[in-house]
Amino acid sequence: MIRISYVSYAKRIWREDFEELLAQLTKTGSASLETWQERYRFRQQNSATYLTLVAVDSTTDRVVGTATLLIEHKFTRGCGQAGHIEDVVVDAAHRQQHLGSQLVRALLDRAQSRYGCYKVTLHCTEENAPFYAKLGLERKGVQMAHYFG
Amino acid sequence: MIRISYVSYAKRIWREDFEELLAQLTKTGSASLETWQERYRFRQQNSATYLTLVAVDSTTDRVVGTATLLIEHKFTRGCGQAGHIEDVVVDAAHRQQHLGSQLVRALLDRAQSRYGCYKVTLHCTEENAPFYAKLGLERKGVQMAHYFG
Repeated sequence: MIRISYVSYAKRIWREDFEELLAQLTKTGSASLETWQERYRFRQQNSATYLTLVAVDSTTDRVVGTATLLIEHKFTRGCGQAGHIEDVVVDAAHRQQHLGSQLVRALLDRAQSRYGCYKVTLHCTEENAPFYAKLGLERKGVQMAHYFG
Repeated sequence: MIRISYVSYAKRIWREDFEELLAQLTKTGSASLETWQERYRFRQQNSATYLTLVAVDSTTDRVVGTATLLIEHKFTRGCGQAGHIEDVVVDAAHRQQHLGSQLVRALLDRAQSRYGCYKVTLHCTEENAPFYAKLGLERKGVQMAHYFG
C-alpha cells in the first residue's frame, strides 16, 4: 500500500531513496550528508515556504514519489500567497498508479486550504502539459530559463 | 537620475508607490498597512529567500520600477538554489529607458554571485519572451496555472 504523507526528516534512510528518486527527474549532484541535513533543517524551519509530500510504499518503506509546494509571499493580491509546484517525480517502477496525480492534487488542496494561495503555477514540458491540464491547470505562458556556468 | 537599490522598508511612502506600480502588472488588492508591514517584515526576515530591487527616481524620490528574486533551496543539484524572477514592472511613464533590463540583469547577477543559483527561471507572456531572450534567457517549457475561487 502506498501512503502519501509529509516528508519526515526522522528517517535518514529516506535521503538515499529521495536522491535516487530525484535523479529520475533532473541532475541531483551529490550533496554530503551534512549539506543534505542542513537543507532539510532549512526547509523544515521554513514551513511557511516549503511543503514536501512523499509517497511511501509501506511494504518496502521506500519513497516512491514526491512533489513540493514552494509558497511565495507576495506584495500583490493584497499581500497574497502564490504556490509553485516543483520537483514532481514518481519512481519508474511505480508509474501508471496515479501517484503523480495524487501528489499534485494534495498540493493543490493544501495550497488553498492551508496556505491560502490565490493561485498555483508550475513549469513543465509540452509532453507533460496534458497531465496537468487533467488536474485543472491551464496553459498560461512561457517559461524562460537561464543556466549559469 | 534613477538609481537601482534594495527595497528599503524604512520609507512608508514607498508602500503607496509600490502598490501603484504593482497595479500596472496585476491585481494588487488592498492590504491594510498592518498586513503590508507584516509582509515586509516576513520578507526582510527571509532574506535567504527574497531579494526585491527597486528603481527610484531621485528627483521625485518615487519608486518607478521593481523586480523580485525568489530563491528556492532545493534538494536537487547537490542541494542547489534555483532563482525565480517575479513581479517585474516599470512605471508606464518610465518605460523605454531600459529600467526593466537593468533590474533583471541585476537580479541575474545577484542570483549567481550572492545566492549561488545554478539557474534562474521566470514565466512571461509570448509578447515579453523576446525581451527576456535578449537578456540571455531561453525558452524552456510551458507555464501551467490554476487560480482558486
